[in-house]
Amino acid sequence: MAAETTRPTLAEALFAPRSIALVGASDDTAKTSSRPLQYLRRAGYDGAIYPINPGRKTVLGEPAWPALAELPGVPDHAFILTPTEDAVDAAAECARIGVSVATILASGFSDADEEGRKLLARLKALRAASGLRILGPSSLGAINLHRRTVITANAAFAEPDLPRGGTFVASHSGSLLGGLVSRGKARNLGFAGLVSVGNEIDLSLGEICAATLDDPEITGYMLFLESIRHADDLRAFALGAAARGKPIVAYKLGRSAVAAELALSHTGALAGEDDVAAAFLADCGIARIFNFETLLEALPLVRRVSARRPGAGAPRIGVVTTTGGGAAMVVDELAMRGIEVVAPSPETHARLGAAGVKAGHDRITDLTLAGTRYDVMKAALDTLLGAPEFDAIIAVIGSSARFQPDLAVKPVIDSGAHSKPLAAFVVPEAPDALNMLAAAGVPAFRTPESCADAMSAALLRRPAAAPAPSSRRVASRPTRQLDESEAYALLAKLGVSHAPAVAIQIDAQGPFDLPFAYPVAVKILSAEIAHKTEIGGVVLNVGSEAELKAAMRRIAENARARSHAASRVLVQPMTAGLGEFLLGYRVDPDAGPLVLLAAGGIYTEIYRDRSIRLAPVDLDTARSMIADLAISRIFRGYRNRPHGDMEALARAIVALSRLAREESVQVVDAEINPLIVKPVGEGVIAVDALVALARREDT
Amino acid sequence: MAAETTRPTLAEALFAPRSIALVGASDDTAKTSSRPLQYLRRAGYDGAIYPINPGRKTVLGEPAWPALAELPGVPDHAFILTPTEDAVDAAAECARIGVSVATILASGFSDADEEGRKLLARLKALRAASGLRILGPSSLGAINLHRRTVITANAAFAEPDLPRGGTFVASHSGSLLGGLVSRGKARNLGFAGLVSVGNEIDLSLGEICAATLDDPEITGYMLFLESIRHADDLRAFALGAAARGKPIVAYKLGRSAVAAELALSHTGALAGEDDVAAAFLADCGIARIFNFETLLEALPLVRRVSARRPGAGAPRIGVVTTTGGGAAMVVDELAMRGIEVVAPSPETHARLGAAGVKAGHDRITDLTLAGTRYDVMKAALDTLLGAPEFDAIIAVIGSSARFQPDLAVKPVIDSGAHSKPLAAFVVPEAPDALNMLAAAGVPAFRTPESCADAMSAALLRRPAAAPAPSSRRVASRPTRQLDESEAYALLAKLGVSHAPAVAIQIDAQGPFDLPFAYPVAVKILSAEIAHKTEIGGVVLNVGSEAELKAAMRRIAENARARSHAASRVLVQPMTAGLGEFLLGYRVDPDAGPLVLLAAGGIYTEIYRDRSIRLAPVDLDTARSMIADLAISRIFRGYRNRPHGDMEALARAIVALSRLAREESVQVVDAEINPLIVKPVGEGVIAVDALVALARREDT
Repeated sequence: MAAETTRPTLAEALFAPRSIALVGASDDTAKTSSRPLQYLRRAGYDGAIYPINPGRKTVLGEPAWPALAELPGVPDHAFILTPTEDAVDAAAECARIGVSVATILASGFSDADEEGRKLLARLKALRAASGLRILGPSSLGAINLHRRTVITANAAFAEPDLPRGGTFVASHSGSLLGGLVSRGKARNLGFAGLVSVGNEIDLSLGEICAATLDDPEITGYMLFLESIRHADDLRAFALGAAARGKPIVAYKLGRSAVAAELALSHTGALAGEDDVAAAFLADCGIARIFNFETLLEALPLVRRVSARRPGAGAPRIGVVTTTGGGAAMVVDELAMRGIEVVAPSPETHARLGAAGVKAGHDRITDLTLAGTRYDVMKAALDTLLGAPEFDAIIAVIGSSARFQPDLAVKPVIDSGAHSKPLAAFVVPEAPDALNMLAAAGVPAFRTPESCADAMSAALLRRPAAAPAPSSRRVASRPTRQLDESEAYALLAKLGVSHAPAVAIQIDAQGPFDLPFAYPVAVKILSAEIAHKTEIGGVVLNVGSEAELKAAMRRIAENARARSHAASRVLVQPMTAGLGEFLLGYRVDPDAGPLVLLAAGGIYTEIYRDRSIRLAPVDLDTARSMIADLAISRIFRGYRNRPHGDMEALARAIVALSRLAREESVQVVDAEINPLIVKPVGEGVIAVDALVALARREDT
Repeated sequence: MAAETTRPTLAEALFAPRSIALVGASDDTAKTSSRPLQYLRRAGYDGAIYPINPGRKTVLGEPAWPALAELPGVPDHAFILTPTEDAVDAAAECARIGVSVATILASGFSDADEEGRKLLARLKALRAASGLRILGPSSLGAINLHRRTVITANAAFAEPDLPRGGTFVASHSGSLLGGLVSRGKARNLGFAGLVSVGNEIDLSLGEICAATLDDPEITGYMLFLESIRHADDLRAFALGAAARGKPIVAYKLGRSAVAAELALSHTGALAGEDDVAAAFLADCGIARIFNFETLLEALPLVRRVSARRPGAGAPRIGVVTTTGGGAAMVVDELAMRGIEVVAPSPETHARLGAAGVKAGHDRITDLTLAGTRYDVMKAALDTLLGAPEFDAIIAVIGSSARFQPDLAVKPVIDSGAHSKPLAAFVVPEAPDALNMLAAAGVPAFRTPESCADAMSAALLRRPAAAPAPSSRRVASRPTRQLDESEAYALLAKLGVSHAPAVAIQIDAQGPFDLPFAYPVAVKILSAEIAHKTEIGGVVLNVGSEAELKAAMRRIAENARARSHAASRVLVQPMTAGLGEFLLGYRVDPDAGPLVLLAAGGIYTEIYRDRSIRLAPVDLDTARSMIADLAISRIFRGYRNRPHGDMEALARAIVALSRLAREESVQVVDAEINPLIVKPVGEGVIAVDALVALARREDT
């Protein structure tokens, strides 16, 4: 058996193979396994196709081979259509003869049952021992519309005339591809390729997409994610896409706990908390949208909007409309997402007047009174696009969009090439207007929710941040806990202040020469005890040496009663401030090092008022984290309270986040709770800290 | 001039007039004022039409009259198409000759400028002095498709073949009607009638809708609201609709503060806080939806779901799907709205197996593995519809919906008549499938967001509550403040406990025979001072009689320094509890009496963790208000804390809400803050209270 002359690249084997074997191809058109041959022929694939069927000489009128080993050449790609039990043997045969990529359709390779675990282990062993790359299992295939390479069993690709274009789709859900393709077709959205990544036991979504990055036909990516899996691959792909100016838009399931659990049971993947995923996607520069339909509509807008650096201020939108009610819906939805629609400045208002546009001084430039006319709409759009107070303009088009596109749709198209982003929301049912706008490259939306969803995703998108160099080397399971004293020493080294603290033997008799005045707090000092209060290991407001001794006795008794061996207590002055935060750092098994700021006390959990970023962060990012929290308002002069030292808080966030680059110590988890905020100029002070290390090392 | 023989009812004059005058009808088809004549003729209106145009003998080929006074009969309805300046004169003429309803197209009757205010005042005076009812100004008209009465200047009604049906639309925005009609047409949604209510200076949205309640052609209502205006009319209409089993669905703008301000500037109406509006709509039994498209899709589902009584427990949904990813989107969206998708019970799972449905034990019944087949889908649906653990079922249909509706769409239609609500979300672009489902009466949705939005609106809809009988008679502006002592007396009468309190002359020398032990709280006692702390009028933790005297001196000085004349202090024992709430009551100028429960302290404002209902409420409703608050979790054994006396809290809510029925005293505003929650069995205790009365009366 002769091999193909050269080994294909991963991208070629996946999306432009010179030859494809269809293992288990059926002659029965009622069966799923008959589909790939039909779809490849219908699409006009021009490479070699080898149907493999041990029981037949022909399949659907084409010559069939009894086994992979009998083929005249080694196929670049094998699509394994057999049932679960036989799929591993087929993959082993692929590995043996030197196939580059095997796509496995069958499901059942899950951790949920014994049989699935066994099959999965065999597949992984096979992958480890050979050069074979595996797509799936549970993959509905890989499609390249430009190369007519439709390697799929998804019935949605039976559809004729799928529009070709620049969008590449990667999905954790195979069945969703059909929904995206049909909805995309209705909106004249052109696809370059699509892939159903299945269980990602070998090829991950990130690695597959990364392989396509230099395909000149691909101009942007659309991801449907059940959870964040193989985060490093995804991040590497995202950085590559950012470097090439190819935007990525993602819909991610699992905002609710219930759906996160579904993703878990469905795929065997680790489903992280959604706000960790949100931080991860944002720091990868991926525009996350929240409405299903926005996934189809957002790319043209995201492509036109640059990522927003931290500290750039809140984005400001201008709105021109021929329908007050339609515009108000968009304004409302934008405001719910923290994006403000602002009124034209007095200068802009004067220019509108000079251009013949009668408009009030409202937040929206409402042309209702002027009547819907090309010249008025065009003048209004051009004036707002040229005005410095707006980051982007939205045109809201009313009933005329349906039957008289020349009046209010055409001016949007004619102004669409302006360097400032211009998007349109079309209020009536007007598919032709939407398609005209899309064909002209103007981002167009059919609902106010989708318009606002895409606009906020585009405008609030952050630049892709490079990962911490050491992030991959840190294990995410802790092996050693620091005691509070050691934790303070580490914080001090990083540059985070802590309350003065003196360690005293728990049975010491005094006198104690404390370097600070009473009242003090007395806490059991032990790396073994994480929740000191719960075991009676904390006494607050201790007013004298006599009370201190009593407190030490009580703590010793409480510890003994719970069989905790503790030999020391930590004594600190009572520290008051304007309020408190929780500042944390951890290495997430999926997303890598993270820094977290949250409202302190019980409110952390009750209101989930928190902000997460990939670590390390710079000062601007730390400030934006503070701004993310609702509770921060009470430190900014709320009800005549004194202002808190927010700059010191920002510096503490930056300092703790540097653990991600720290080579001398490998921290898995660090939590300062509470971090007391003092008035401006007086800093922030850690008054408790927990730190877990990955391995025993000196701090 | 002869009058019509009998005077029409309001509904007849608005939506089925025997004759219509078009005042200011133009012969120039480029002008808006030429449209109503064209549209009425095109629709086939069979009554008399009188174009009024002083300058022409004919308008668009029909005989025209020079003035209303010259007409051969008194028209039931006049549509005034003249510019703002002339519209009042035309309305005056209508009143003089006895027209029943005049609809005014012109805008400019706003409070925003002097001219607008004058015109508005003239119009209101005219209305007060005559029997003329006014629709508008700024109304785009009133349409009855069954009677072919298309009294409108909205270009959207130029469209042929608008589908007739049972839905009546009322909108604050006239231009939105076009969007609703065209989108409705695309979805085969039939309309009975539509009205653009404009500024509602006379006829309110509620009164207009109420007039149509007995129209047998109308089966449900769709409202597009900018804000809540003329709340009493809206409530009366809602109660009438509930009594007739005609559901109401509403989209309301103004969730964000910015949009609320837009509604204000746009219409001159009072835009209340959105959560007051939310409470009002909910207690009217109106299903509020949040996505624009849901407005078009929700009615068939709301019609099939009964309102949910307080205490009925959280609704539970079953999901059957041919696409795992599609179903997961719906599950996620439902969970975000507090609706849980639950797995079939073991019994139901067994029945599924017996019916030949292979399904896992997941939350969703995923038929992917079984392949998409009529018999499997039908058996799965029927089994779930018959299972007692579900309140409703959602069928999620994948790619087959597009080209093979027999496989998964038809079984949904065939099971759609079950007494348990069944709805469908169609994942691909499949307009035919959506229309087939709609024609069969199955609620069908084209996005997961809309499906979840409608399902939660339908399932969480509350029964329409009758208003408090005295609510209309209470002025909403306070005239007299009670002091804290008087406020406690009122609370005690209602049945709300307060901390013991002793009033003492501020210059008393003692000794004081307090009926409780130290430490105590000392507060200035004066009806004039609402914010005692801010003027230095509160001293806490006063430990002895000496300290009490010092505190009284300090408070007296602080009051004098700010020129407050205060002669007494209130002394109370320091009261500790598990936590605190704010419990409030007020008479909203729009919505009427309300009761509010909120997280206490600064968190009320920071997190807006609050629940509002129209007052009075019953015990079940009070319990559901407690359940609404995130903070309530800390009183239910959170982190091993003791449970709080939530039943006592519920009783306190009911007690305070009874102010709405209190005849002896007219309270405008009452706020207990904090209301301290004690452990179970120990009750709740008011430790501060502010009460404002509408007029001077004895409490």
